[in-house]
Amino acid sequence: MSFPKSLENLVEQLKVLPGVGRKTAERYALHIINKLDQEQSNQIADAIQVAKNKIKHCSICGNLTDDDVCDICQSNSRDESTILVVENSKDVFSIENANQYKGLYHVLNGVLSPMDGMGIEDINLDSLWKRITDDKVREIIIATSSTPEGETTALYISRVLKDIDVTVSRIGYGVPVGLNLEYADDLTLSKAIENRKKY
Amino acid sequence: MSFPKSLENLVEQLKVLPGVGRKTAERYALHIINKLDQEQSNQIADAIQVAKNKIKHCSICGNLTDDDVCDICQSNSRDESTILVVENSKDVFSIENANQYKGLYHVLNGVLSPMDGMGIEDINLDSLWKRITDDKVREIIIATSSTPEGETTALYISRVLKDIDVTVSRIGYGVPVGLNLEYADDLTLSKAIENRKKY
Repeated sequence: MSFPKSLENLVEQLKVLPGVGRKTAERYALHIINKLDQEQSNQIADAIQVAKNKIKHCSICGNLTDDDVCDICQSNSRDESTILVVENSKDVFSIENANQYKGLYHVLNGVLSPMDGMGIEDINLDSLWKRITDDKVREIIIATSSTPEGETTALYISRVLKDIDVTVSRIGYGVPVGLNLEYADDLTLSKAIENRKKY
Repeated sequence: MSFPKSLENLVEQLKVLPGVGRKTAERYALHIINKLDQEQSNQIADAIQVAKNKIKHCSICGNLTDDDVCDICQSNSRDESTILVVENSKDVFSIENANQYKGLYHVLNGVLSPMDGMGIEDINLDSLWKRITDDKVREIIIATSSTPEGETTALYISRVLKDIDVTVSRIGYGVPVGLNLEYADDLTLSKAIENRKKY
């Protein structure tokens, strides 16, 4: 005997979420069936579809946005001379929450990782080169994580930009080595940006 | 700066899942946005709605089912003289997985808990009384959990059935098979000693 078919299907679907195994998926599914009313469960389903349909990458920086250009790139109050390069949108939100950095971002949506088939063409680099020549950019702060792939990506960017008239720096090691940016606390993130090192 | 609106909404919606806080909801939402393709995310949304629409409580035992009567109540191969009373459907699936019990079930979908506004009318008891008079039931095994509410519910059922010609029993509590004594909690150990069996 197993779950009714539609419940079993829901459990299987929920297992695609990161870190969710059979037991957790069952718990979520039974909660949806038993504890939520029709409206609440519709809201979850709608939220998934609306978010999936509406959200795209900012045409300038690659950050997630509901519009063509993200709020940060649209803003007049940001320091346009600095671009902070991060692996993904989550890092943008983490750094924004620390409320210290006032420049712009560039979201790579990945890191160089031949093992995972991620090459130079696969991470949002072309638009970074373009931004550097087009804009009044003076400094690039590279904030990829301190994994081997993150370091390789940082090194690659710094080498490409070596002969160009911009300062290239690496986010300071306030961020504990091996910790994902999203789990770093606000103060650590602020320190890390403050203590950035020139390449 | 926060997430784009549709992403923020998705995060908020996912927070209704049990044990899911802000960070986990963000992780799930960003996984849905970044890692799943359109079809996969539609499948999750559909699965939620289909399950929510299709699944109902078995009209006999209260178990979750896609049909009017659940597979177990429909089956001809179950021992109809025994009804095992559980708090919720999850317990049915757990016991079924153990593959030893061959009787029927009765799912209360709750326990008596005045604090949570759960009274005698709110848990699936009326249909239990009806089954006992209608059917060829000889034994009721009460398998509500050993929380105060579960014990109260068990006691209530046993008292109501005192003058009726069915055996009412409570499942045995003790040290889980394979567990070292040192890891058993005090209450379990007390129960285990109380429930000792003569050789």
